[in-house]
Amino acid sequence: MSGKPADFSPLETPCIVIHLEKTEANIAKMAAAIRKTGVRLRPHAKTHKLPEMAHRQLQAGAAGITVAKISEAEVMADGGIHDLFVAYPVVGLSKLRRAAKLIQAGVRLILGVDSLEGAQRMAQVAREQNVEFEARLEIESGLNRTGVSAAAAVALAKEIDALEGVSLTGIFTYRGAMLGGAGTTDLRSAGHEEGRFMVQTADNLRAAGIGIRDVSVGSSPTAVYAAEIEGVTEVRPGTYIYQDAMQAAFGLCSLDECAGTVLATVVSRPAPDRIVIDGGSKTFATDVQPGKPPLHLKGFGRVIGDPEAVFERMNEEHGVIVVSPDSRYQVGDVIGIIPNHICSTVNLHNFVYLLNADGETAKVPVAARGLLE
Amino acid sequence: MSGKPADFSPLETPCIVIHLEKTEANIAKMAAAIRKTGVRLRPHAKTHKLPEMAHRQLQAGAAGITVAKISEAEVMADGGIHDLFVAYPVVGLSKLRRAAKLIQAGVRLILGVDSLEGAQRMAQVAREQNVEFEARLEIESGLNRTGVSAAAAVALAKEIDALEGVSLTGIFTYRGAMLGGAGTTDLRSAGHEEGRFMVQTADNLRAAGIGIRDVSVGSSPTAVYAAEIEGVTEVRPGTYIYQDAMQAAFGLCSLDECAGTVLATVVSRPAPDRIVIDGGSKTFATDVQPGKPPLHLKGFGRVIGDPEAVFERMNEEHGVIVVSPDSRYQVGDVIGIIPNHICSTVNLHNFVYLLNADGETAKVPVAARGLLE
Repeated sequence: MSGKPADFSPLETPCIVIHLEKTEANIAKMAAAIRKTGVRLRPHAKTHKLPEMAHRQLQAGAAGITVAKISEAEVMADGGIHDLFVAYPVVGLSKLRRAAKLIQAGVRLILGVDSLEGAQRMAQVAREQNVEFEARLEIESGLNRTGVSAAAAVALAKEIDALEGVSLTGIFTYRGAMLGGAGTTDLRSAGHEEGRFMVQTADNLRAAGIGIRDVSVGSSPTAVYAAEIEGVTEVRPGTYIYQDAMQAAFGLCSLDECAGTVLATVVSRPAPDRIVIDGGSKTFATDVQPGKPPLHLKGFGRVIGDPEAVFERMNEEHGVIVVSPDSRYQVGDVIGIIPNHICSTVNLHNFVYLLNADGETAKVPVAARGLLE
Repeated sequence: MSGKPADFSPLETPCIVIHLEKTEANIAKMAAAIRKTGVRLRPHAKTHKLPEMAHRQLQAGAAGITVAKISEAEVMADGGIHDLFVAYPVVGLSKLRRAAKLIQAGVRLILGVDSLEGAQRMAQVAREQNVEFEARLEIESGLNRTGVSAAAAVALAKEIDALEGVSLTGIFTYRGAMLGGAGTTDLRSAGHEEGRFMVQTADNLRAAGIGIRDVSVGSSPTAVYAAEIEGVTEVRPGTYIYQDAMQAAFGLCSLDECAGTVLATVVSRPAPDRIVIDGGSKTFATDVQPGKPPLHLKGFGRVIGDPEAVFERMNEEHGVIVVSPDSRYQVGDVIGIIPNHICSTVNLHNFVYLLNADGETAKVPVAARGLLE
């Protein structure tokens, strides 16, 4: 994309290089697609875990940022992001106290809730800290993880709405492309279905007297389609900023549009058809396994420039790639790999290297990585 | 084990608690078993990633410490460990220069090598930095990752031995319990086979005039058995220090002997038979998947006190556990889980909490975690 080729020789491997021009193109493409629908875009920061990238998304028109943890909200707030949604049921009293602190500091912080016990804990901390929590009820939509069923939502919402200190202003769900369940790759239908289901659920709650304003849905595979449904107010894609081999397999991008590349060094070629690189399961996330439906991903990532190579298996420090016997890999070569799942891969790295249009790299700590507590 | 129950209430979840009494018992048990054989014990630090734990292993009689990376060797050296083996082919010139620095600082640092190209790079840096590298040749013994085949070992060893600045003093292999391949759970036979194979390989090299002194083998499942073979000089178990659900499935320990517990909070009970905890694939490693042969692990970890519970699936922040419908889990409860693979799980955590016999916890940064470069 730029005239000057990047010089990766000063970089120690394994490491992640983030191509900034591709990142900007991905940000702009999603922002334009969502803008057309009139729906608000609230990107999930789980992919980049960097306030700097969140600012780029906001500058392109995003209305706020999504995170999964109070600790991540703290890092984003510290980095100057002041409209945050923790799309996760926050139930720990100490975490709710930290949330109260952010609100007292002037952050608009929306919290997820999916149980009366969770809401009661919010009410307890709201009273204790003299704040009001803005909450969104999580609705179960097929992944069978957190979220109340649509059938039980009205009764629960009424109980939550009656609590002092908790203002129930919206509903949200995460369905992805149903990767956790039966799986689909008809993303348009999946996005439409998700949107319609949530709008219907919001209408049921409104009919029961609950003031639901926000209907927040969508993931990178489905956001553009879910946003087409009248009544959806917000979408929360995350992965699109960098893209990865999984998104490419969905047909959402080409491998060339993937902005996050893992660089690794060939440390061994013990057989003509096998190379071993210095990155294994500490470098590449293993949460998205190859071969599984619906995507049947070919290996643990795609080797740039060698579509035939199969990244077959890993141990902690070893990545084993099956290559053509007449390929020319040598010990010491540095190769680039597009990982299957960039979000969880970034989480493994203390640093990323940001590569600009002039071929220069800047080493940046991943500010919100590994924040579990 | 102690009179005073631990108070975990100040800990934010998810987090890892390391039970120090169990850790000490595991260290002592392995040290005693290996001491009986007269073989040297060089534990792999990949499990704990903490100089403090390496010192405990040395105090119990270990002859040195194993690591996988120069960056890990740097942390261990900085923490006062001065006899280190990087059991990995080190081929990067910058990494070899960092290795040279450690040697110049007085560390006994042994490096792995499995190719002529790698050895030539060592020789280049040895000349440039005016050091001598002590190297061990990695032998392929079944996992088909790094390592030269026994058949090709003599020819390669002769070429390496002829290089100035590289002193080939030993051979090593890693075979685990063949988890990467066909798999076995007859650990005694596997350990004996591994030991005999390597002693035979060393003898072949000696017959060709190569001065092989060290024959380094073994993993937590096989170390005790491999050490019984005459001619084996060193074993390198790692996981035994904390143990985990995988080691328990091998029959090497009970779940109660596992010293590393992940604490997590129940954030949702959306159905009577399902709880969701605040730890997913960012908290529990996914490199050892459930259900696969030979161990057929039941879920992604074992819930302490509830053998029937199945930790069925994860997303980044969600852990979904199938429980008995009449179990009494409530939102806000903190539960303990023994992970399938403690080494890669520790790598996900910035901190561990060390729990002493008085029930006190100390928050300690995992000094050598996430060191990829």
